[in-house]
Amino acid sequence: MDFRNIKLTIAYDGTDFSGFQRQAKGERTVQGVLERALYRITGEDKTLRLTAAGRTDARVHAVGQVVNFFTKSRLPVEKWPAALNANLPVDVAVTSAQEVGEDFHARYAAKKKTYQYRIYRGKDKDIFLRNYTYYYPYSLNVEEMRKSARYLLGEHSFKAFAASGSSVQTFVRNLTRLNLEEHGAELRITMEANGFLYKMARNLVGTILLVGEGRLAPQDVERILRSEDRRGAGPTAPPHGLFLLRVEY
Amino acid sequence: MDFRNIKLTIAYDGTDFSGFQRQAKGERTVQGVLERALYRITGEDKTLRLTAAGRTDARVHAVGQVVNFFTKSRLPVEKWPAALNANLPVDVAVTSAQEVGEDFHARYAAKKKTYQYRIYRGKDKDIFLRNYTYYYPYSLNVEEMRKSARYLLGEHSFKAFAASGSSVQTFVRNLTRLNLEEHGAELRITMEANGFLYKMARNLVGTILLVGEGRLAPQDVERILRSEDRRGAGPTAPPHGLFLLRVEY
Repeated sequence: MDFRNIKLTIAYDGTDFSGFQRQAKGERTVQGVLERALYRITGEDKTLRLTAAGRTDARVHAVGQVVNFFTKSRLPVEKWPAALNANLPVDVAVTSAQEVGEDFHARYAAKKKTYQYRIYRGKDKDIFLRNYTYYYPYSLNVEEMRKSARYLLGEHSFKAFAASGSSVQTFVRNLTRLNLEEHGAELRITMEANGFLYKMARNLVGTILLVGEGRLAPQDVERILRSEDRRGAGPTAPPHGLFLLRVEY
Repeated sequence: MDFRNIKLTIAYDGTDFSGFQRQAKGERTVQGVLERALYRITGEDKTLRLTAAGRTDARVHAVGQVVNFFTKSRLPVEKWPAALNANLPVDVAVTSAQEVGEDFHARYAAKKKTYQYRIYRGKDKDIFLRNYTYYYPYSLNVEEMRKSARYLLGEHSFKAFAASGSSVQTFVRNLTRLNLEEHGAELRITMEANGFLYKMARNLVGTILLVGEGRLAPQDVERILRSEDRRGAGPTAPPHGLFLLRVEY
């Protein structure tokens, strides 16, 4: 076999990126800095194409994003993290590398993804968390939010929670976990599914927040889900509270 | 009385600042952005002069820095934090304000300061901590570091730990706490004294790290302290691990 398929687990601070995906204009993207680092190591430019499990938006972070790419390089797999990290900026890191079969595709082969959304509820802003939590100093009924979460669990069409105008084959996803945990002044919402529609994680959070505020009842969420109408759901929560935690295959 | 003396407690992320103190050239400083915000509120420019408890270096952070300034503004004291925060960039925040007597001076009146130094010892770099901890993935004997700390406690001339060329009236300071605590992969060194010489906190950390590495014995630290010779002490630990936690009066 000429080409090897390499799978990488990567972390990045999304603050200074215009999202994961390389863009036509010269915006700074995670894909862009990764492909540049790979080019420096392999000399491969035209043939190398990077695929990510999830194309995160601008300011969204990742702790365990997964990508794969095909290369002719003979560099032993255990050397890839250090070689890449030496060529990556301070806000991206490769945490592990694995050689995988030629059929492995970071996006299509993903069986489960976990996102976490962090909300900071302290009375005063914590400037050190400004890029990593959504500052929300208003009163929230967390028990009501937990109740609404139960309606969302399971296999449904999540069309009401997809960015309007999304074109996908199916809006059906299986949400296997939607968990709210309080850590001091932080509320962390962990979401696990076999896949997420575009902006689905942030739209779920925005809707659950309306329940926490008392502007929606928990059971309204079931109605919104069934309506398959984006206009009934809450606003898209801001990107900088969201972390892609892990991808399972 | 014409002028009121206002004391503020402020927090800042030092990452994008060239230190606290306003500089001749147009560098971005905490004092600069604070004075600009005060000018917008008071219209006072020439008369307003800000004094800080500690003039932190570039990339050093503060959770509880204290400053004071004199103003003719009649704005009620409880309105100052919100008024200032509306005019400050995202990496500085005023957390409280108090009207104090005309004799209060943020630096000279300080009785005790507490600094904390954060060291990240995980095998892999944590990119989210890159600006807030010193990444130090090498083996450290924390018990030996704790032993060395005991020699430093109390009232001594700390000249060996002051930046060389410092000109101060006295190098004597009273170090009342020097504590090492492990939090997961982090080692936090908390230092409390009636005052710190220029770069003293970072030089203490740099020296204690040499003990942790086994390059100095704990009792060597006593010899270095007595020598009053900067050349015997360890290197200055990098600024971005250091936080000014609080100032007491």
